[in-house]
Amino acid sequence: MSSTVHVFGAAGFAGAQLAALVDAHPHFSLGQITARADAGRSLRDVAPEYPVDQELVRPDVGATSAGDFAAVCYPHAEAAQLVGELVDRGVRVVDVSADHRLPDLEVYERHYGVEHPRPELVAEAVYGMPEINRDRIRSARIVANPGCFPVASILALLPLKDRLLDAIVDAKTGVSGAGKTPTATVHFSQVVENLSPYKALAHRHAPEMAQALGVHVAFVPHLLPIDRGLEATCYARISGPVPSAQELHAIYEDRYADHPFVTVRESPPDMRGVQRTNEAQVAALPDPEGGRIVGFGVIDNIGKGAAGQAVQNLNLMADRPETEGLR
Amino acid sequence: MSSTVHVFGAAGFAGAQLAALVDAHPHFSLGQITARADAGRSLRDVAPEYPVDQELVRPDVGATSAGDFAAVCYPHAEAAQLVGELVDRGVRVVDVSADHRLPDLEVYERHYGVEHPRPELVAEAVYGMPEINRDRIRSARIVANPGCFPVASILALLPLKDRLLDAIVDAKTGVSGAGKTPTATVHFSQVVENLSPYKALAHRHAPEMAQALGVHVAFVPHLLPIDRGLEATCYARISGPVPSAQELHAIYEDRYADHPFVTVRESPPDMRGVQRTNEAQVAALPDPEGGRIVGFGVIDNIGKGAAGQAVQNLNLMADRPETEGLR
Amino acid sequence: MSSTVHVFGAAGFAGAQLAALVDAHPHFSLGQITARADAGRSLRDVAPEYPVDQELVRPDVGATSAGDFAAVCYPHAEAAQLVGELVDRGVRVVDVSADHRLPDLEVYERHYGVEHPRPELVAEAVYGMPEINRDRIRSARIVANPGCFPVASILALLPLKDRLLDAIVDAKTGVSGAGKTPTATVHFSQVVENLSPYKALAHRHAPEMAQALGVHVAFVPHLLPIDRGLEATCYARISGPVPSAQELHAIYEDRYADHPFVTVRESPPDMRGVQRTNEAQVAALPDPEGGRIVGFGVIDNIGKGAAGQAVQNLNLMADRPETEGLR
Amino acid sequence: MSSTVHVFGAAGFAGAQLAALVDAHPHFSLGQITARADAGRSLRDVAPEYPVDQELVRPDVGATSAGDFAAVCYPHAEAAQLVGELVDRGVRVVDVSADHRLPDLEVYERHYGVEHPRPELVAEAVYGMPEINRDRIRSARIVANPGCFPVASILALLPLKDRLLDAIVDAKTGVSGAGKTPTATVHFSQVVENLSPYKALAHRHAPEMAQALGVHVAFVPHLLPIDRGLEATCYARISGPVPSAQELHAIYEDRYADHPFVTVRESPPDMRGVQRTNEAQVAALPDPEGGRIVGFGVIDNIGKGAAGQAVQNLNLMADRPETEGLR
Repeated sequence: MSSTVHVFGAAGFAGAQLAALVDAHPHFSLGQITARADAGRSLRDVAPEYPVDQELVRPDVGATSAGDFAAVCYPHAEAAQLVGELVDRGVRVVDVSADHRLPDLEVYERHYGVEHPRPELVAEAVYGMPEINRDRIRSARIVANPGCFPVASILALLPLKDRLLDAIVDAKTGVSGAGKTPTATVHFSQVVENLSPYKALAHRHAPEMAQALGVHVAFVPHLLPIDRGLEATCYARISGPVPSAQELHAIYEDRYADHPFVTVRESPPDMRGVQRTNEAQVAALPDPEGGRIVGFGVIDNIGKGAAGQAVQNLNLMADRPETEGLR
Repeated sequence: MSSTVHVFGAAGFAGAQLAALVDAHPHFSLGQITARADAGRSLRDVAPEYPVDQELVRPDVGATSAGDFAAVCYPHAEAAQLVGELVDRGVRVVDVSADHRLPDLEVYERHYGVEHPRPELVAEAVYGMPEINRDRIRSARIVANPGCFPVASILALLPLKDRLLDAIVDAKTGVSGAGKTPTATVHFSQVVENLSPYKALAHRHAPEMAQALGVHVAFVPHLLPIDRGLEATCYARISGPVPSAQELHAIYEDRYADHPFVTVRESPPDMRGVQRTNEAQVAALPDPEGGRIVGFGVIDNIGKGAAGQAVQNLNLMADRPETEGLR
Repeated sequence: MSSTVHVFGAAGFAGAQLAALVDAHPHFSLGQITARADAGRSLRDVAPEYPVDQELVRPDVGATSAGDFAAVCYPHAEAAQLVGELVDRGVRVVDVSADHRLPDLEVYERHYGVEHPRPELVAEAVYGMPEINRDRIRSARIVANPGCFPVASILALLPLKDRLLDAIVDAKTGVSGAGKTPTATVHFSQVVENLSPYKALAHRHAPEMAQALGVHVAFVPHLLPIDRGLEATCYARISGPVPSAQELHAIYEDRYADHPFVTVRESPPDMRGVQRTNEAQVAALPDPEGGRIVGFGVIDNIGKGAAGQAVQNLNLMADRPETEGLR
Repeated sequence: MSSTVHVFGAAGFAGAQLAALVDAHPHFSLGQITARADAGRSLRDVAPEYPVDQELVRPDVGATSAGDFAAVCYPHAEAAQLVGELVDRGVRVVDVSADHRLPDLEVYERHYGVEHPRPELVAEAVYGMPEINRDRIRSARIVANPGCFPVASILALLPLKDRLLDAIVDAKTGVSGAGKTPTATVHFSQVVENLSPYKALAHRHAPEMAQALGVHVAFVPHLLPIDRGLEATCYARISGPVPSAQELHAIYEDRYADHPFVTVRESPPDMRGVQRTNEAQVAALPDPEGGRIVGFGVIDNIGKGAAGQAVQNLNLMADRPETEGLR
């Protein structure tokens, strides 16, 4: 018997792919897929790369049932409100927004500028990286789907987490990460033949990385003239001697042996093997003179960085094979 | 003694380059450069590729003097109003908008959906292609700077104008041609790795081409994933025998011998030789079996297609060398 | 019971995708996948976007069996030789090269500059557009997979084939169409921010179009700064009155009603709905004043233009559902 | 009276622009511009963006005279040989190759894998960053034009050189930096919609940075899907308290007050203001919690990173204004 997954906010880049993944999933069936401005149009019409003819509708929490699943792809603050209502009805939720990622509410409120309406749900939510919390995700009522930058950078450093002294994350993302709203920032003429550092040392994903890695993170994102793909080059000083390249590779291989979506590469990966997938590729190199290692992580920012990751979490929550519908 | 050139609407792509060209021009000096939302910012701040520190100001027609020149880079309809006011003060104007290009007001009003406020000025205006109207431009009060698509396609077919039976213009333009306003159409994620035909057989530049070439023109523009550059591949049946490739080349060479900004190439040009310049490159090939020739034209849509073309016209109006400040 | 498909020339763009499609196909199983320089590497290593770990091997015709299928992605002339050997062993072949597309050997030899080694096989081969020859493909020993440009342009005009007086095909293709060999033409710095007409009125795909459409075709291809995707804007004068837009749409809908991979659109399509698929989208607009229609076709040049098309043909040859493994 | 500048290796990206800059320079006149494969073609034909009709010739050292200047854009090792011959004839040389950048010959030979033919000339050569060695450049016989990555990263950290404890340079470059030779690495289909870290912790520009900054440098370059432009984000721990943002800005302003081609920005710059120029833009932000600063530098890799930089050096050597011919 299939499980119903509702996708709230399905007209954006992440929501549209999430709806398409659910639609093609062997086990899940698509419940309502919602939009505001685009209600009444088909998903395919709004996002032609996804061959889904189902119609976008205005959100209707009342049409969900206990036992259903939902993915919420709303802006932060708006998401928290909806997640609460869904959970109250017995719906289990993957929150693709940032609203349940930071259990330290003081940090959340400082970075997002709003008060959280349901602190008890933040406390309960599980951070949705299966490579860290696989078992807790299985039984969670609320899974906080991680940010795209944190996914790539945490995976790039996680195997040495216990030895990190600090971390620098220099990340580069495709434009789809900025969302679908037309702004001067995403005008083709602004982006093409350009690279833009932005929100340097001030991006909201930094506390999420720091929380997962346990150290201060200096984070500088850069906007790339590509649509999809995200790379993080991560520089971290570590305690103890710096492993050799072979030792590093073995440590990474060992850490991810049981995680189907993380592949450890011998050398720093480009984006070709991960685009339009839920795969991550990582590598690490030693810098013994600097007392540090350099970790590399690449993902599709909409895939493993959002929609694919959400389906991976839904698979765990629904007790399905972790890779189902994702390969 | 220098001449003053005011640039109205200098924050857009064409206006900004026009202001920069005037600023660097040996003879002209920059009068007011105007903007609305961006008033108070420097041009360099608004358009970092142009090293001009002058401040954008709100437009002030009263600050212009008889004998000054002005270039008007406003949306159509708004331009006509301003051009009239300027001419009334004795300012000679290059109208970069479409408002003075179509002397047949019925055609203008059908395509632009507005009534023209100053029909007598449309009648007086000279169509600003120096390759057609060089002498009339010299003495004009109003020069109607041509559209970017017409420049490339008219130049591609002009040498055979008297023999044309019809014309098809299949044109491809960079995104800057769509202007600076952020819309879904110019979102990087929409444009990259894509090509979009748009306004097929319904674009406002078609009547402008037809007027200059004297035949019906089937015009289909396509949006390219590039910032700057415009190419027109033009298919035209002609009366009489189809010249050989060598004959065609000679006809084109002869037609443009006296026109410094048009280079005739042996084979169809790409965009590299014209980007960020006021140059045009053209070529023509015979299709004897089809009774037609194929003409090719490339320009920079903001250069020879707008701002550079305007300066070329200003040079003529001010009795300066035609290439001054453009090489 | 599955059928074996060998892919000869699997390291190139088309061959690699073809191997990946066969690998993931419910019915087919992958036989040898061959390469010369890359023999010994896995397909995934050579083409990271395809998750296929099978190793590329040097071609071995002796390892094929009667009843097997093969797809040949060799350069022309080399392909003809191999196809002959395979057919002699009872292998049924889709020739992705140009070697069996032109039954008029005089035309073939003039355009490809070689003599065909097996004229009787050219005579026997079926041109592999299911929208024209579906039934003949089912029983063919050799299917000549069409060129990428012909697929898009023939589909754009096919519904009016009987009324065509002539045809102009102005096509734009992604760089993958130029193949994997590094040359000055495909250097990133040459392609980006550029558009290049090439082989204007002299491209080898023109006779293939003319053969399918029954009229002279003036064909000008242009190289786009994108990887994958191909668009053809086709201008054709027709006999009799030019249908209205609605009538044209109905004619196209009717022609393709039974063809699952061709979608008729109301307005000219961009590439988003077809990239990385075997889908084609077409549209047509009337130009009554010019006595012509304008047909539009978009495909993925490696998908419906090569590898996907080949699998569609293999499905027919193996008596499988036409869409199997392609959606 | 003008000075003659010969450009050896003028068909590559840097050499072609250098020749064009010299050609348009008010004081310099272009001597021989050399090429091997492209000898006999005009520069414009080889590099259409530069309107220089002079013909490329095979190199002829005998055609140079004492008092001439030369710029050598050869591959390393080949350059050293030629530079020696030129200096022996009394020609003053800017070596755009790496052959005279590393006075520590052991370091040079380890990184470049060749023995230097003229050690005494390496010892004599001046490292060609005017922001460090302006006065020594004026009188040098050999100026070692710096690498593109070092220019951007050294400028990004130079104002705090005396307080640096270490440095990490995460740099991103356009494809033109990889040179004009077609390889798999620069195939459009490989580069577009991608980002590739390469030679991580193993790039030859690292010792050049370390030499200029006086600390160990961990350097990871990344290949961007753009043609021209280079950005370096540089993370450095410093001794003493970390300055505030305002203090940092003042330190940078002060350091570069006298250097016309370096602009200090309030926030991290993108590439728009430097492309196709000899300008550099830098910025710095404090990370007090990490005890470090983050410096940003952007340049045009062919401009301030090669050809423009060389002309700036030639201006100094010829006792001309530093900005002549560069604005």
